[in-house]
Amino acid sequence: MASKPSIPKGTRDFSPTEVAKRQYIIQIIKSNFEKFGFQPIETPSFENSETLMGKYGEEGDRLIFKILNSGDYLAKANAAHLENKDSTKLTSSISEKALRYDLTVPFARYVVQHQNEIEFPFKRYQIQPVWRADRPQKGRFREFFQCDADVVGSKSLWQEVELVQLYDTVFTALGLNGVTIKINNRKILSGIAEVIGASDKLIDFTVALDKLDKIGEDGVKKEMMEKGISEEAILKVQPLFSFTGTISEKITQLSELLSESGEGMKGVEELRFICENVMKLGLNNSILDLDVTLARGLNYYTGAIFEVAPPKSVAMGSIGGGGRYDDLTGIFGLKNMSGVGISFGLDRIYLVIEELNLFPETVTATSKALFINYGDQEAFYALQAIQKLRASGVKVELYPDNTKVAKQFQHADKRGIPFAVIIGEQEMTSNSYSLKNLVTGEQVSVDFEGLLVALS
Amino acid sequence: MASKPSIPKGTRDFSPTEVAKRQYIIQIIKSNFEKFGFQPIETPSFENSETLMGKYGEEGDRLIFKILNSGDYLAKANAAHLENKDSTKLTSSISEKALRYDLTVPFARYVVQHQNEIEFPFKRYQIQPVWRADRPQKGRFREFFQCDADVVGSKSLWQEVELVQLYDTVFTALGLNGVTIKINNRKILSGIAEVIGASDKLIDFTVALDKLDKIGEDGVKKEMMEKGISEEAILKVQPLFSFTGTISEKITQLSELLSESGEGMKGVEELRFICENVMKLGLNNSILDLDVTLARGLNYYTGAIFEVAPPKSVAMGSIGGGGRYDDLTGIFGLKNMSGVGISFGLDRIYLVIEELNLFPETVTATSKALFINYGDQEAFYALQAIQKLRASGVKVELYPDNTKVAKQFQHADKRGIPFAVIIGEQEMTSNSYSLKNLVTGEQVSVDFEGLLVALS
Repeated sequence: MASKPSIPKGTRDFSPTEVAKRQYIIQIIKSNFEKFGFQPIETPSFENSETLMGKYGEEGDRLIFKILNSGDYLAKANAAHLENKDSTKLTSSISEKALRYDLTVPFARYVVQHQNEIEFPFKRYQIQPVWRADRPQKGRFREFFQCDADVVGSKSLWQEVELVQLYDTVFTALGLNGVTIKINNRKILSGIAEVIGASDKLIDFTVALDKLDKIGEDGVKKEMMEKGISEEAILKVQPLFSFTGTISEKITQLSELLSESGEGMKGVEELRFICENVMKLGLNNSILDLDVTLARGLNYYTGAIFEVAPPKSVAMGSIGGGGRYDDLTGIFGLKNMSGVGISFGLDRIYLVIEELNLFPETVTATSKALFINYGDQEAFYALQAIQKLRASGVKVELYPDNTKVAKQFQHADKRGIPFAVIIGEQEMTSNSYSLKNLVTGEQVSVDFEGLLVALS
Repeated sequence: MASKPSIPKGTRDFSPTEVAKRQYIIQIIKSNFEKFGFQPIETPSFENSETLMGKYGEEGDRLIFKILNSGDYLAKANAAHLENKDSTKLTSSISEKALRYDLTVPFARYVVQHQNEIEFPFKRYQIQPVWRADRPQKGRFREFFQCDADVVGSKSLWQEVELVQLYDTVFTALGLNGVTIKINNRKILSGIAEVIGASDKLIDFTVALDKLDKIGEDGVKKEMMEKGISEEAILKVQPLFSFTGTISEKITQLSELLSESGEGMKGVEELRFICENVMKLGLNNSILDLDVTLARGLNYYTGAIFEVAPPKSVAMGSIGGGGRYDDLTGIFGLKNMSGVGISFGLDRIYLVIEELNLFPETVTATSKALFINYGDQEAFYALQAIQKLRASGVKVELYPDNTKVAKQFQHADKRGIPFAVIIGEQEMTSNSYSLKNLVTGEQVSVDFEGLLVALS
């Protein structure tokens, strides 16, 4: 192999620094998931194709990575599809497994498969990679981690309350102050659809309404009419064009607007319960916002819809999202299993924290000190100390080779190791260590206790 | 879908308890890797096929999971191979990516690709899943984790010394006392091959010698001769048939036996350096053993060879292994890059710890207390306390629904949650909490401070 090796497009190698930073975020998410009573599960990287196919729409099916059957896979290939070179149809006869596309469908499969062992309501979290054969672009990868927390088996709205708190707690712990947790409700969107007289126009309606800041009321109305929404319908939802004020005020406006839609009013009551309790309990650093243009996951969400926007100083899309879906496991034959969950967007959160310079300096997987190697006797003396330091939990290492001292110091420098320990005959005779601070250049002679204190 | 969904054979779902136990092991391995100065990297789950193919022998190539190209993959398929239904030859024209088979080849690829950013010697660890299309059987899976630590870019034998210490430290931290860290050296095996006059008989020789305990000296010699090793050759290595005593004694015997083999004597000196320093520095709980029948990885190891056997009370194969390979990155065009590393067998370590009942009781991802839900007012009061408890790092949860109290207690019981917190009108009026120990049945009334202390 003459040229340098490479990795598939859309995938990434993570360096030690990057892994340490990612682990820092994951650890905070994970520990808060557990504080909120969620328990971890893990599912296989690949599922039987029938588990995944048909669950994400036609586009989703195309973006699922399929695994070629092992052995003589052509022996079982469908002859007609092979003859016709019909790739799409041939796939199912030469591939029985596929890489997971998200964590939600595998979770639904898990719940149905293990329903007799699970104690419901089941609060689970899952932090694992997923794969999508999407066209790679800035911030979009073919392999990326999802961090999901879901509760299944209870319709209680206290869970929505707690999920908002969970978002707030995690982002506060990450130092990300001022994120906006947007909330909406599918039933309110249904109510609006009822009022504007056509549910098929709902997406057009919300997309247009979302541009209010940019193109003004007249611009929005023009766009709505172009999309076939009648003037009369638009008039009926006129309050949405001046939809400002506190959450309570917004809820009051919505309850007037949707008073004739039973479904819409149910949504208003759900929103009221969630928002009132969240506000009474109080958030640390996040802003709760009722956003009726929030229409993500319209196909599967049935109640609350969540989306989190980063602090306003950062230009980036949502860093989290989720909602309530009343029939999570129906696709696998287990009916009436309501679920609600949220997801954290690891890659974007990473970029936001990086941009705001919020990674603590201590986030590093590097050693605290490098013991300089002056020869086998000195190395042995060093390892006696290293052994005890490690037993006390201190990360230290010995430069393996007795090479030029300047090179060894350079190594510590390039690795970002803050201390060097120098051991020569004098140190060995006096049972001491010369400890050099590589940042300040200061050097002191210490005994083992002094070494332990300085490096702990 | 009428029947219950399932997962592909050889793969596993991990329940909350299983994930918690696996994470416990991984966390101990990881923190000790870092204490020893190893830094984490992560590589993509799939690599370009050319990176993996041809690196693991013909059998390995067959066991690599290939990913079908996306889109109209048949358009680019080799027409002749398609016509002939030659699965093996067709693969490369319909599949460009493959799931990683181990962590060593991706690491070698990483080192070569990033050689200009890496500061050598490079101590990296990697804990990620790998995939093999092996026939699944007890303890052998198609998806499993590898936990590897390697140093690349130095030939110093101090690293072998430290790797033995690393094994000892990890297994000690896991409470696994009495593991045997077996050590051998490829150069000693080469020396033996020289002495018995045929390197192609070396495997037959070590396999037969390994049966000494079972079939006795005569049996072993008989088997050797059946394999074509001459009586004369066997006589020359006669000392190996009474190869007992301390490591020092064994090394003395080896140096006599291999005195005429330059390569063999180099192996003896390496072994002497490693073993003497390990013994002088001392191990915590593990036994170091020189085992000349240890011949794993004969194709790539060039120096030390390691293998770890579980405590003798457990009947299980090796729970770790590794060695020195002088040309790790040569396959990708970077010559003279010596490496040495060890691996921990997560699945087997899990089974051993389970069998010896060594998982601490605290290894669980379950909550410390369940707040019983008596209605919205009580739930709100509960969440005020829960919020503060979580802020102090305590894992607690509210039963989401105001359902039968007996059912809620049953839920806590089945989940293994040790405490229940009961809140009624009386508690709300007196600003207190009734805390019930679900193991002893004892119930006390406490204020928030009391709650915090009891649950911390």
